[in-house]
Amino acid sequence: MPLQNKSTSQPRACREVAVVMGSDSDLNVMQSCIDQLEEFDISPIVRVLSAHRTPQAASDFAQNAASNGVKVIIAAAGMAAHLAGSLAARTTLPIIGVPINSDAGVGGLDALLSTVQMPPGVPVATVAIGKAGAKNAAILAVQMLALSDKSLEEKLVQFKTDQQKKALEKDAKLHR
Amino acid sequence: MPLQNKSTSQPRACREVAVVMGSDSDLNVMQSCIDQLEEFDISPIVRVLSAHRTPQAASDFAQNAASNGVKVIIAAAGMAAHLAGSLAARTTLPIIGVPINSDAGVGGLDALLSTVQMPPGVPVATVAIGKAGAKNAAILAVQMLALSDKSLEEKLVQFKTDQQKKALEKDAKLHR
Amino acid sequence: MPLQNKSTSQPRACREVAVVMGSDSDLNVMQSCIDQLEEFDISPIVRVLSAHRTPQAASDFAQNAASNGVKVIIAAAGMAAHLAGSLAARTTLPIIGVPINSDAGVGGLDALLSTVQMPPGVPVATVAIGKAGAKNAAILAVQMLALSDKSLEEKLVQFKTDQQKKALEKDAKLHR
Amino acid sequence: MPLQNKSTSQPRACREVAVVMGSDSDLNVMQSCIDQLEEFDISPIVRVLSAHRTPQAASDFAQNAASNGVKVIIAAAGMAAHLAGSLAARTTLPIIGVPINSDAGVGGLDALLSTVQMPPGVPVATVAIGKAGAKNAAILAVQMLALSDKSLEEKLVQFKTDQQKKALEKDAKLHR
Amino acid sequence: MPLQNKSTSQPRACREVAVVMGSDSDLNVMQSCIDQLEEFDISPIVRVLSAHRTPQAASDFAQNAASNGVKVIIAAAGMAAHLAGSLAARTTLPIIGVPINSDAGVGGLDALLSTVQMPPGVPVATVAIGKAGAKNAAILAVQMLALSDKSLEEKLVQFKTDQQKKALEKDAKLHR
Amino acid sequence: MPLQNKSTSQPRACREVAVVMGSDSDLNVMQSCIDQLEEFDISPIVRVLSAHRTPQAASDFAQNAASNGVKVIIAAAGMAAHLAGSLAARTTLPIIGVPINSDAGVGGLDALLSTVQMPPGVPVATVAIGKAGAKNAAILAVQMLALSDKSLEEKLVQFKTDQQKKALEKDAKLHR
Amino acid sequence: MPLQNKSTSQPRACREVAVVMGSDSDLNVMQSCIDQLEEFDISPIVRVLSAHRTPQAASDFAQNAASNGVKVIIAAAGMAAHLAGSLAARTTLPIIGVPINSDAGVGGLDALLSTVQMPPGVPVATVAIGKAGAKNAAILAVQMLALSDKSLEEKLVQFKTDQQKKALEKDAKLHR
Amino acid sequence: MPLQNKSTSQPRACREVAVVMGSDSDLNVMQSCIDQLEEFDISPIVRVLSAHRTPQAASDFAQNAASNGVKVIIAAAGMAAHLAGSLAARTTLPIIGVPINSDAGVGGLDALLSTVQMPPGVPVATVAIGKAGAKNAAILAVQMLALSDKSLEEKLVQFKTDQQKKALEKDAKLHR
Repeated sequence: MPLQNKSTSQPRACREVAVVMGSDSDLNVMQSCIDQLEEFDISPIVRVLSAHRTPQAASDFAQNAASNGVKVIIAAAGMAAHLAGSLAARTTLPIIGVPINSDAGVGGLDALLSTVQMPPGVPVATVAIGKAGAKNAAILAVQMLALSDKSLEEKLVQFKTDQQKKALEKDAKLHR
Repeated sequence: MPLQNKSTSQPRACREVAVVMGSDSDLNVMQSCIDQLEEFDISPIVRVLSAHRTPQAASDFAQNAASNGVKVIIAAAGMAAHLAGSLAARTTLPIIGVPINSDAGVGGLDALLSTVQMPPGVPVATVAIGKAGAKNAAILAVQMLALSDKSLEEKLVQFKTDQQKKALEKDAKLHR
Repeated sequence: MPLQNKSTSQPRACREVAVVMGSDSDLNVMQSCIDQLEEFDISPIVRVLSAHRTPQAASDFAQNAASNGVKVIIAAAGMAAHLAGSLAARTTLPIIGVPINSDAGVGGLDALLSTVQMPPGVPVATVAIGKAGAKNAAILAVQMLALSDKSLEEKLVQFKTDQQKKALEKDAKLHR
Repeated sequence: MPLQNKSTSQPRACREVAVVMGSDSDLNVMQSCIDQLEEFDISPIVRVLSAHRTPQAASDFAQNAASNGVKVIIAAAGMAAHLAGSLAARTTLPIIGVPINSDAGVGGLDALLSTVQMPPGVPVATVAIGKAGAKNAAILAVQMLALSDKSLEEKLVQFKTDQQKKALEKDAKLHR
Repeated sequence: MPLQNKSTSQPRACREVAVVMGSDSDLNVMQSCIDQLEEFDISPIVRVLSAHRTPQAASDFAQNAASNGVKVIIAAAGMAAHLAGSLAARTTLPIIGVPINSDAGVGGLDALLSTVQMPPGVPVATVAIGKAGAKNAAILAVQMLALSDKSLEEKLVQFKTDQQKKALEKDAKLHR
Repeated sequence: MPLQNKSTSQPRACREVAVVMGSDSDLNVMQSCIDQLEEFDISPIVRVLSAHRTPQAASDFAQNAASNGVKVIIAAAGMAAHLAGSLAARTTLPIIGVPINSDAGVGGLDALLSTVQMPPGVPVATVAIGKAGAKNAAILAVQMLALSDKSLEEKLVQFKTDQQKKALEKDAKLHR
Repeated sequence: MPLQNKSTSQPRACREVAVVMGSDSDLNVMQSCIDQLEEFDISPIVRVLSAHRTPQAASDFAQNAASNGVKVIIAAAGMAAHLAGSLAARTTLPIIGVPINSDAGVGGLDALLSTVQMPPGVPVATVAIGKAGAKNAAILAVQMLALSDKSLEEKLVQFKTDQQKKALEKDAKLHR
Repeated sequence: MPLQNKSTSQPRACREVAVVMGSDSDLNVMQSCIDQLEEFDISPIVRVLSAHRTPQAASDFAQNAASNGVKVIIAAAGMAAHLAGSLAARTTLPIIGVPINSDAGVGGLDALLSTVQMPPGVPVATVAIGKAGAKNAAILAVQMLALSDKSLEEKLVQFKTDQQKKALEKDAKLHR
């Protein structure tokens, strides 16, 4: 990864991004979120907190997140995915929601609608279902942090350039 | 209403059924739930509690419901309808979820999936979208209470008989 | 299972919960419902009754359920899942509906809508599609019985605590 | 109507087609079914029978239909539309299902899936949602009867010719 | 199969039921339709006719079907499933439509809606998506023929009884 | 309209674009298609032809279209919208399909899927549901004709420029 | 509005939030976004830029946004809502997408999926369909800015408190 | 392939059809499009251009396509498939959109709606999801070119005849 090679600095303080999952089974999707954050030298807090099984822990986490230095929370859940919304209810930090496609039958539409259709007053910044969304949640978190972090902003520009370059190379290979 | 005429007794203690809405705008749908409960001489607790705008109040309500004498909670919400699930997370009482069809575009499917697709371990007893579900939530609550209340059980049987009778009368009128 | 270890008592009378399936092929989903009930020391009646292939047997079962001591009926079916509704039409007992995702193409949405969208007057307490719903149907049935059974109520509280503990342990393992 | 003008005969015996609705509110959709049948000189039995509110009456009706001379049953219902299927369970007569679009939010998809997705062994001949389906149910019933009724067959051919003619006239008017 | 064992008679004339598929790849679904018809001693005409690739052959087939002795046409197609409708446009015989779930992404909903949502005047008797529908199409065709065929009617009653018996046996096996 | 002001020439021969509707009730949507074509000085053939009610006329029209000088056919239909596909089956001319949203309940999804999901070998160039699609069908037809018509190509470039200009003016008005 | 009463300061520099719409007809939905931003003393840039009608202007806007001082872009569009994604392709600023429900038939699902299902590498922070989403987009933008703006953070906390208070008052009014 | 055997001529100039994909992973679907074009002796330009990762390259390609001799552009993309629309925004050439079904959960409905639901003024000629659409996009492109190319028109007629012949052979094989 060109981006990683360039970063020789220490990992950025781990407090600024939290990746929260409703179940440890979501990790196989969310690993790509964590990996993408680490590519930006962000070592996130990783938690398994359920709006339904550990509501108090989830609520405490959200309520204390800001004072613990967290700036952006990424929340992933499947089915009736309430996690992102329930965290959003307890903090003014921006919450990014990643809908997870479960085996329960309706193709991730349940998680998508449960995450994105938040009532007025309590937004959740929702990204795509599954791995694409997991990766994009990381980038979106970085974009938010980069608003006040020049070096992250530069990394984002570099990332976009690299991504474009890789896409152009693929084009060059297939181009006929 | 034949059922009402028969009941000359005092309203049953109001603590046993709670009707909770995510927004006061849900009342125009949930009135039919309240009316149906009152037809069974149950005067429910009625609350406006939002999983997203007043999460602590909602959480406190659920946590104290059992010790306050509540036996069944009916929770109505629209869009990313987390209310029923968030109450279910905080109590072992049965929670009945009523999905409300909002103006937000997807025909109530968002509220339905957000309410019914609960993860393993935390059920919500979901009924139909809108007024049909509101009325049925009341009946379902009565069915649960009737498991240990002979007089309610009798009222349910009477209700079913009356309902059948009314339907048969409609059949008789149209029958040709 | 911590819950099972604690129970040295005899299985609770088998009459109080019935698990009814539209087809014996639904058993591979509904086994998790039966297992969950047995974790609560409830040994359910298990029946294969079809609203379409054995309507009289299904109807008889529902009509006699209450007098046979059944208190809650869990009904699982796929496709145009009429089983729960057709039982609900014949009894005032609470009916819990579990939508089963069949191979017939629309991802369980057919069974979900056929189960949950009951007309006013005849509720079905619907849970999630498939295994999550099967397990939750068991818990919901226990919640209903626990309204008048102190020892079941305690077991439910214990179950919730155990579930929370297991979730917190998973969090502890992944937490970084 | 050219078709009606041609028929000077007595209405065909009313026993051969039955139009059954789950609720009298379905009549405003099903009137077009009845009208279409009458255009073919078939005066149908019209009943309001609910799979959920009057299951025994519905069941009795289906069970006795054949011996009462009914040959085809048209069943219309909305929401979790079980009516057609529950009649099909009790008779070997062909059942035509008309899904009715209710106010309950999901655009008639609930009634369509609840009607058409019948399990193997118990078919329901499903037509389009609402008025188009109501009219087509009548024609389909006539097509079935016409298999053994030469005069009905001729009327069907005439109907198709008239229909074509009317469509061609509309084309002629708009044609430029 | 008890039904088959009982039939020692010659296959019924093959002209009365036609099974038409849009593509030979549909045969793996439609074999269960053909098998079911043969269980009723009906040896159907089997054709591969496409509304889009061989429209003239399909049109000719429909137009001549009645005079060739066909009484019921079963039409199976996937994707934008126009076959059943295009046959219905050319004959007054009853057409049964079987929606086939293709790999093209939307879970058979395309074929279902393309088959069932016929405009007023031209019905298609639609059954469930895939194999369940294929089998039910056969039974529905038999139900139509049985309206004027006493021996088929008896076979249908026998089929229903056998089906019920098999279902009851499964119940007996699982019953606890 | 700046585009119209510039054209002082005679209407282009009417044979090159045909606008075909399944029903005259589709005209209120398709008028915007006709208007848009006329803005490009194309006076289309307008026909009401139904794949289901006048299949032979529709078939004849498609089969003779090329030899009658038609180059592009726009076909609009609702519900199980087979018109575009049935025309495509009979000609090698490009067919543009406009799905019409009917009252029949599923929000135009039926017409969209019935139009776009054509099987391999017989394409339909599908545009958006309703008026937006009707207008775009006209532009798409012009784009096809413009491949071999320099003056149409210029008009298209002018149209795009005008459209952009109007959009920029709206931006200028609202810009703050 | 208590929030507005408290702010006597000058509107915050208008460059930091841009509200971009695909069409001026979206303004009736997006006014609630603008109003909500102004409640936070943010006077946004408001633009009408279309990914399809003025792609260069949209592209230029996105490319220059950061250097023009914009920090967050809110993009609203209906149907195949490409606006948010096309802006995201040209900047590393966070983009918030608001799906608009058009008349084109599928209940806003088109705009939702077109906005949220972004491929890996280019996120769009999607909020709910329509007015709820419009308002939430404003709050989400403020949450992002508040990460490095203490006074905005305080206003957010105040907003959340006010919102909660208003909700509790509604509860108090209805509570029985 | 009979069609290929007949063509001994040189490949037609490669500039007239371009096949553009959003990602090189789409090639396994789009190969059938390229193959189909080559069957018509058209050797297309093949490019990997992303509306989101290489927007400038995509935009440049579309803007210069006409002057580079391209006449028809086929654009394939998955998820929030903006590629076809973003090319359509920059050229007056006809654009054919192929929706690709990704793993992201909603069965290709996202790509279909993102491609077809274009706003008024900027059409995309959309074909079916996946391989069927890929092949049909090729045929549709040929149909457009054939409007001014007699030899292509003849090949199309030949293709249709061959296709019909193959289908009739399959019918002959299965016919019983």
